[in-house]
Amino acid sequence: RSFYRPIVSMTTIMEQQNKSYWAAIETQIDTHLKKSMPIRPPTSVFVPLHHLTFSASKSTAPPLCIAACELVGGFADDAVTAASAIHLMHAAAFTHQHLQLSDGPMHEGSTVEHMFKPNIELLTPDGMVPFGFELLGLSEQAQKNSDRILRVIIEISRAVGSQGVVDGMYQEILHGKLKGVDDEEMMMYVCEKKEGELHACAGACGAILGGGSEEEIEKLRKYGFYVGMIQGMLNGIGKNKQERFEIVKKLKDLALKELELFQGKNVDQISTLLEM
Amino acid sequence: RSFYRPIVSMTTIMEQQNKSYWAAIETQIDTHLKKSMPIRPPTSVFVPLHHLTFSASKSTAPPLCIAACELVGGFADDAVTAASAIHLMHAAAFTHQHLQLSDGPMHEGSTVEHMFKPNIELLTPDGMVPFGFELLGLSEQAQKNSDRILRVIIEISRAVGSQGVVDGMYQEILHGKLKGVDDEEMMMYVCEKKEGELHACAGACGAILGGGSEEEIEKLRKYGFYVGMIQGMLNGIGKNKQERFEIVKKLKDLALKELELFQGKNVDQISTLLEM
Repeated sequence: RSFYRPIVSMTTIMEQQNKSYWAAIETQIDTHLKKSMPIRPPTSVFVPLHHLTFSASKSTAPPLCIAACELVGGFADDAVTAASAIHLMHAAAFTHQHLQLSDGPMHEGSTVEHMFKPNIELLTPDGMVPFGFELLGLSEQAQKNSDRILRVIIEISRAVGSQGVVDGMYQEILHGKLKGVDDEEMMMYVCEKKEGELHACAGACGAILGGGSEEEIEKLRKYGFYVGMIQGMLNGIGKNKQERFEIVKKLKDLALKELELFQGKNVDQISTLLEM
Repeated sequence: RSFYRPIVSMTTIMEQQNKSYWAAIETQIDTHLKKSMPIRPPTSVFVPLHHLTFSASKSTAPPLCIAACELVGGFADDAVTAASAIHLMHAAAFTHQHLQLSDGPMHEGSTVEHMFKPNIELLTPDGMVPFGFELLGLSEQAQKNSDRILRVIIEISRAVGSQGVVDGMYQEILHGKLKGVDDEEMMMYVCEKKEGELHACAGACGAILGGGSEEEIEKLRKYGFYVGMIQGMLNGIGKNKQERFEIVKKLKDLALKELELFQGKNVDQISTLLEM
């Protein structure tokens, strides 16, 4: 009994430390966003902007961006603007996915509460996306390392655009119409686009901003991709399918392999994202 | 009779030259966009992207961007990506403004033909906006003059975001609800946001990319602002109001004043935008 106890409590302490690591990152991103977009006149614009930014589901991509930056030896501050921009893009996509269109909400069975009218929920995300790019352009990093920021702008615009998240949402609608069709292959594709590539982008951007080598950037891009795939498969449509757990297990192994290059306590921290 | 004829035909030649100047710029932007986004698989994504990009109303802001670049001594090629990005932002806003929401189209009395379902018309512009930023990040100028491109990214994101075009569309809805209210002051504000600031941004971006001085950039920002205001007042809601023609006349004088700093044939060319 005394043999197990220390181990158990060690695990608990580690778990708590890791939890507080992610919680601290989340707080940092929230604080940065709140500072960047204070509620000010016209409140008819900024109240919905604030609400829709913070009420959207949380994605693990923004915190991954900061963790990746730290893993390659950068400071969290170097990646917090990119993480905030990624959250804005995610929140914009989330809001549009639940928008009430004349042919019904895009997301079947959506239970999101609508605080605002459709036209506000249409336009507010239209403001959030350029705002994310503006934040990047105005960031401290843009002064110090304009090449890195330009690279991050390209990474993010690709990941969220018509060949990234938008494509995933798009295929999800097309697929969603064919109810009963059990097209697991298409759902994998949707996960790739909606979650995989966004997390891949987050990992790569964090590594770029932290001054990582090209090898480190590509490792963290792949790590992010696997993390995103796991998130998508366990939380997206068809999430309870038994066969997915096998795939998830394989994805975890692949993800851990990408971290072998790195050393230090940050490896343990970033790898706990696989258990979320 | 022989006295007048040459003058008349001179005017005609000049008019034709100016017309062909703008037509050539329009063609250059269209060609650049078509080259940047060829129709390719998945066609379910790229066909609507293509259609909505080229079927949107034409704004004078993108050609102004190129003319401003040339006026400060730059090459049209230096500004064609920014002009294309501005068109993409404009086309995205145009499409969302005519989107069929569950509480009706945002734009009262919209007569736009809908080739695609609402969900496609929602998502396609969501891809167009980041695509515009991606084009800027990947442009030749981003390699040669990354600081100028970053500045342009900030300019465009501000002009189209929640304090620019989106704010204008937003106030237009709020105002549109109060039918019969003749709030010309609010309509001026809408023109400022939807047209004025977008054209101001186009003028400034052209000057930045052409290597203009800070003074030239600010002159062309103001010139663009007046051009946009005129466009908004003559083409937007309440366009036939008599009192507007007086204001437009004053705006033209103010606009021409901003061009006094500049010399050469390009001054005549850019000033014909005031007659469109």
